Amino acid sequence: MVSGRSDANTGRIRLGMVGGGQGAFIGAVHRLAARMDDQYEFVAGALSADAKKAKASGAELGLAPDRIYTDFREMAKAEANRTDGIEAVSIVTPNHVHVPAALAFIEQGIHVICDKPLSLNLKEAKQLEKALAKHPGVIFALTHNYSGYPMIRHAKAMVKAGELGEIRLVQGEYPQDWLTTALEKTGQKQAEWRTDPKRSGAGGCVGDIGTHTYQLMCDVSGLSASELSADLTSFVKGRVLDDNVHVMLRFNNGARGMIWASQVAPGNENGLKIRVYGTKGGLEWTQADPNYLWYTPFGEPKRLITRGGAGSGPAAGRVTRVPPGHPEGYLEGFANVYTEVARAIKAKRAGKKVEKDVAFPGIADGVAGMAFIEACVKSSEKNGKWTKL
Amino acid sequence: MVSGRSDANTGRIRLGMVGGGQGAFIGAVHRLAARMDDQYEFVAGALSADAKKAKASGAELGLAPDRIYTDFREMAKAEANRTDGIEAVSIVTPNHVHVPAALAFIEQGIHVICDKPLSLNLKEAKQLEKALAKHPGVIFALTHNYSGYPMIRHAKAMVKAGELGEIRLVQGEYPQDWLTTALEKTGQKQAEWRTDPKRSGAGGCVGDIGTHTYQLMCDVSGLSASELSADLTSFVKGRVLDDNVHVMLRFNNGARGMIWASQVAPGNENGLKIRVYGTKGGLEWTQADPNYLWYTPFGEPKRLITRGGAGSGPAAGRVTRVPPGHPEGYLEGFANVYTEVARAIKAKRAGKKVEKDVAFPGIADGVAGMAFIEACVKSSEKNGKWTKL
Amino acid sequence: MVSGRSDANTGRIRLGMVGGGQGAFIGAVHRLAARMDDQYEFVAGALSADAKKAKASGAELGLAPDRIYTDFREMAKAEANRTDGIEAVSIVTPNHVHVPAALAFIEQGIHVICDKPLSLNLKEAKQLEKALAKHPGVIFALTHNYSGYPMIRHAKAMVKAGELGEIRLVQGEYPQDWLTTALEKTGQKQAEWRTDPKRSGAGGCVGDIGTHTYQLMCDVSGLSASELSADLTSFVKGRVLDDNVHVMLRFNNGARGMIWASQVAPGNENGLKIRVYGTKGGLEWTQADPNYLWYTPFGEPKRLITRGGAGSGPAAGRVTRVPPGHPEGYLEGFANVYTEVARAIKAKRAGKKVEKDVAFPGIADGVAGMAFIEACVKSSEKNGKWTKL
Amino acid sequence: MVSGRSDANTGRIRLGMVGGGQGAFIGAVHRLAARMDDQYEFVAGALSADAKKAKASGAELGLAPDRIYTDFREMAKAEANRTDGIEAVSIVTPNHVHVPAALAFIEQGIHVICDKPLSLNLKEAKQLEKALAKHPGVIFALTHNYSGYPMIRHAKAMVKAGELGEIRLVQGEYPQDWLTTALEKTGQKQAEWRTDPKRSGAGGCVGDIGTHTYQLMCDVSGLSASELSADLTSFVKGRVLDDNVHVMLRFNNGARGMIWASQVAPGNENGLKIRVYGTKGGLEWTQADPNYLWYTPFGEPKRLITRGGAGSGPAAGRVTRVPPGHPEGYLEGFANVYTEVARAIKAKRAGKKVEKDVAFPGIADGVAGMAFIEACVKSSEKNGKWTKL
Repeated sequence: MVSGRSDANTGRIRLGMVGGGQGAFIGAVHRLAARMDDQYEFVAGALSADAKKAKASGAELGLAPDRIYTDFREMAKAEANRTDGIEAVSIVTPNHVHVPAALAFIEQGIHVICDKPLSLNLKEAKQLEKALAKHPGVIFALTHNYSGYPMIRHAKAMVKAGELGEIRLVQGEYPQDWLTTALEKTGQKQAEWRTDPKRSGAGGCVGDIGTHTYQLMCDVSGLSASELSADLTSFVKGRVLDDNVHVMLRFNNGARGMIWASQVAPGNENGLKIRVYGTKGGLEWTQADPNYLWYTPFGEPKRLITRGGAGSGPAAGRVTRVPPGHPEGYLEGFANVYTEVARAIKAKRAGKKVEKDVAFPGIADGVAGMAFIEACVKSSEKNGKWTKL
Repeated sequence: MVSGRSDANTGRIRLGMVGGGQGAFIGAVHRLAARMDDQYEFVAGALSADAKKAKASGAELGLAPDRIYTDFREMAKAEANRTDGIEAVSIVTPNHVHVPAALAFIEQGIHVICDKPLSLNLKEAKQLEKALAKHPGVIFALTHNYSGYPMIRHAKAMVKAGELGEIRLVQGEYPQDWLTTALEKTGQKQAEWRTDPKRSGAGGCVGDIGTHTYQLMCDVSGLSASELSADLTSFVKGRVLDDNVHVMLRFNNGARGMIWASQVAPGNENGLKIRVYGTKGGLEWTQADPNYLWYTPFGEPKRLITRGGAGSGPAAGRVTRVPPGHPEGYLEGFANVYTEVARAIKAKRAGKKVEKDVAFPGIADGVAGMAFIEACVKSSEKNGKWTKL
Repeated sequence: MVSGRSDANTGRIRLGMVGGGQGAFIGAVHRLAARMDDQYEFVAGALSADAKKAKASGAELGLAPDRIYTDFREMAKAEANRTDGIEAVSIVTPNHVHVPAALAFIEQGIHVICDKPLSLNLKEAKQLEKALAKHPGVIFALTHNYSGYPMIRHAKAMVKAGELGEIRLVQGEYPQDWLTTALEKTGQKQAEWRTDPKRSGAGGCVGDIGTHTYQLMCDVSGLSASELSADLTSFVKGRVLDDNVHVMLRFNNGARGMIWASQVAPGNENGLKIRVYGTKGGLEWTQADPNYLWYTPFGEPKRLITRGGAGSGPAAGRVTRVPPGHPEGYLEGFANVYTEVARAIKAKRAGKKVEKDVAFPGIADGVAGMAFIEACVKSSEKNGKWTKL
Repeated sequence: MVSGRSDANTGRIRLGMVGGGQGAFIGAVHRLAARMDDQYEFVAGALSADAKKAKASGAELGLAPDRIYTDFREMAKAEANRTDGIEAVSIVTPNHVHVPAALAFIEQGIHVICDKPLSLNLKEAKQLEKALAKHPGVIFALTHNYSGYPMIRHAKAMVKAGELGEIRLVQGEYPQDWLTTALEKTGQKQAEWRTDPKRSGAGGCVGDIGTHTYQLMCDVSGLSASELSADLTSFVKGRVLDDNVHVMLRFNNGARGMIWASQVAPGNENGLKIRVYGTKGGLEWTQADPNYLWYTPFGEPKRLITRGGAGSGPAAGRVTRVPPGHPEGYLEGFANVYTEVARAIKAKRAGKKVEKDVAFPGIADGVAGMAFIEACVKSSEKNGKWTKL
């Protein structure tokens, strides 16, 4: 079941980064994810808009001084002009910088791996979509990292193969508790920008984790929502953006679904969970215990499929590193996105077609996510009116 | 922690039953629940409207021939005229018979223990409420049996004591899978009447298990919903009543909630689960594993409170029979309702005030449940319009 | 899957009890278990050796004054001489009274349901075995109640049907924590007699819960141990009997096993668990969550079989009361022993052969249990020498 | 709780490898672990004794041709003579090569990271111990990787701080199922050498996973066994080495324990679990779900401590990368050993004392492990005689 996966470091992809300087969280995750399967070499960065911080961060990470930038536009140009310039860039800034930065690199023909949600708003997202349409050679990946977990890959393959029959229900939830109090007023950086509409966009909780949930529900079920009814709430006094999200969904095939995402549910760390039910069976998966997938064929005993174990097929196997019973986690799932992107980049490099099994979230997921956020915000403002996506 | 609970059989309460003849399910559960703590003696019944079946059922259960009835009205009168007549009656018929039967016994001053949901519709529920107001000496209990589980009692006590702070979120779900296919067309009795609006009322899944979920959410949180938005669906071809229920709720204190109830989610047996979150902590409880209660004080490690174990208080203790680690189940929870009712009846018998800790669901829960069903049906018909209860 | 089990109360079996007066624990459990399926009527008792307590206890339980005894021998004779005398007796005293009491009733032809372990020592156990051989009409049941759980019945049936192949390993454990401190010195009755060799016999923890574990391992696997090596320990200062038990086992077919039983493992309430592995698959069951049985066929995904659910067969169905997803617990498992015994008694009453599927632990389990205790104590005294049973 | 851990790649440690060529499993794990925190640069290898395979493997991994060796002795000398020679070497061969290879590098003053078990036998282990005593500047690490898991670090810190009181019990188990059939006869490489005494040593299951279990029990509890009684079995026909291990242990402080390790328990993948109980509380940890640690203070509700969450202290924090609720797994635990070793090497490099919190398993664990294997084999040969370590 476990692929005899090589960690060949020959021909590593030269990678740059925008954002992710000292004090940032997700930048380090991206770098580790890129490093895990030895497919990338980290060589350049505009790690901070603050010049001093940018330099210190780059030095700490071993970047050559001439490849430490303070402006991503400058970086895009400079790297494009080097023979050893970066082939791909990771964008790990707050949301409002995603699209401007992505555009700068796309225009130089540099592949982009961007953090989610895609942009500040749907308009921006579509602008980026158009730019990508004009640069078909550029690969764009969006790190909806949960879709990189092996058992999610397996779940998706099962649905596609019809093992669940016709899908009727897709239930998603993502409770957290870190914003139960007004953490953003204590100087905590993550809380600050994520609760600030200028940097996060119109969605708070719905943008940060609601989109992850929706993306995963669509990814696994193969469906997309045609309309939704949402009730967004801000429970913590003084908070502008939503910190709790309730959504009812109607999917394009007539299936129904719900999303609950929350940042104020004490005891929940990163409780992302999805459940999919069809006429023939169901699936259940929880991010905190990602190596397990419950498969419940109707009228038969429940089965627990484990990553790498019996019943875990090739879709999981291609993103599996260690034997069953040895857990893989969040970083491995994240790295799977990077490694799949590397496969695509290397195919392009070699002038080959990208192998059809290579899969990672891209611009379509990003646009759908922004449409989801906007529909949620609109619906909630109109007291839950069913709103088309 | 475990109460030194006596199983004294002196002065048992004489109990009758309407419905619950051969082939029925819930009647046997009620009888077992009544028997568990030896507080009742089962002596009379109108077990079926079919005379032959009524007799056979009564004989099998050891009833005296003259106390086997075919008509509940006749039974109510006859028993009221006996010096050894029943003191209480259990009504375990399909929903459409609940109110007529209850009225017949209430008028005779006989206590009533009725299965849920209360009635065919809200109008009928209010009619019963009025009748009870005229007979203040009559005890009326509604077997929302899940509220009898010890850890639910403990959860309720914790919320009441303020251990969760101000409540913000109440999430409920109750997935099942037994109606994934058109079971009602195969002659299965339970499926037949539960999918028939004449016998079940306007709600299918929402009436059968949605009400259980809503009652439990209110019972534990101490809140009630002021308005809701619902999306009811019938997935199985030819089914008139809903078999899947999605509801968003707004509670009287500003809290928010959701309910998912389903009869078409393969792999779910009786997956009732509630989660309550406040400013200071959370609680999580699952019916299939009822001896555990997760308590998650914000900023501290999660705690697993077990029935009878450390941290399980007197509210649970009064309905606990065996030591921690020895599981109690569905029948024990059901029996707790019966035993609490027996305490109330015995107090009345003795001319005493009912002890304040005695707790069981009653007419208020029933009326609220019918209001919930009606609001769900109405809201869903109006495409999810927020509807007051 | 669920048997359409009747709760017919016609022809209830007249039952007496020795022990189980006020302040006792297990007596109330036996009475509740007897009552659950309405197969017994409790009519006589020698509930305490203390006359005053015996009377008060009997009165509280509604016994007729002339059927409240203070001496079990007197009771046996008196009841045997009544036309409405008891047909069966439950013995729920500390261990040292089991055999004398059982003998008194057996001699009168009264069926016996006795708590475990069987006796004070192996010699006594064999004496009882002989007496029973002389009274073949008398039914003797030993309440190794865990063998009454439906999923244990199913596990046993699976092993018997060869679904696990040849059995290689049987692992049992039963950790508790209630004797972590010197509870017996605080006046707690249960702790007092269970740590007293005069009333408990030579085994402390090994007698109380080690025997339960061993019985269940043998019951499910169909094997018995031919020899064992034990290391018994008393961790709490001043305690004479063992409070922790480590045993290695060799079974009659060459299989191996281990038992860990403990009363000093904080956080464990009644953590009885057994695991059986054969050449073709494995089984795992935990008492605290008794409605689940893990079945792990080699080379296939794990399956979770639920009581009453798909995959749960007739062996479980005959001792199942409520649908899957509604948990049954300790009392239901205990009641299953009583109800199976009732089936046997009623067959005898009717002059019929006892149906072959009727199953409950009896004298053989009792003698084997005493042999197990003696072998453990002996082996431990000889520094773990492998000792034949 | 999460350390603001840098992934600084400045001053990476130059690393070589012995073993781990194409087709090997653990070699790739070591390389990934070394790469994760960017502390090492993989530059040289004797990846196979087969020259062709060594070359192909080295090329695939991007090694310079002149640093691909076929003989580890040659490699040790050549690397020691380069100014840019390796500073550390990973030895990932079958067991019989561990000591000869380690000696070759130690003599050249090159740090060694060696897979477990340490050696073919205890004699060899002590020889290595002596060599290390002669080269105090050389760091020797043994990849008992499970001790690198954050919650294991936390557990160890809790025991050390006295939170469990005096330790009474240490229970360990490690069931697997991969050798349920005669896999070694099918050409599977892992199965072949692990069941071959020439390459594995005298222990089969006991050497491969029994030692892991024992090491972890000692590591967490701070104890070591003074004597043991073992029953080793080979269940699969034709297998020379043990495939199932039962051990009873007596620790140096009077505590007791058991180990069950098995390769023939269907349904178990890598079921390593340890439980430690003291006078004041207990701990329970399972490798397959490594981000959770159950802490059970006596007389209080159970607590679930999560990696990075509330209650998880600095000992876990120093080896934690991502926030609570985002699982870390096997590779992260393995990487923690590498990163701790890197901290030690960098301290030595800088002429500083190694920080006291740096912790990784070393020669003492290795010698203890070999003593454990020898004692198990000896005891089992003498029918379970208690044998000193």
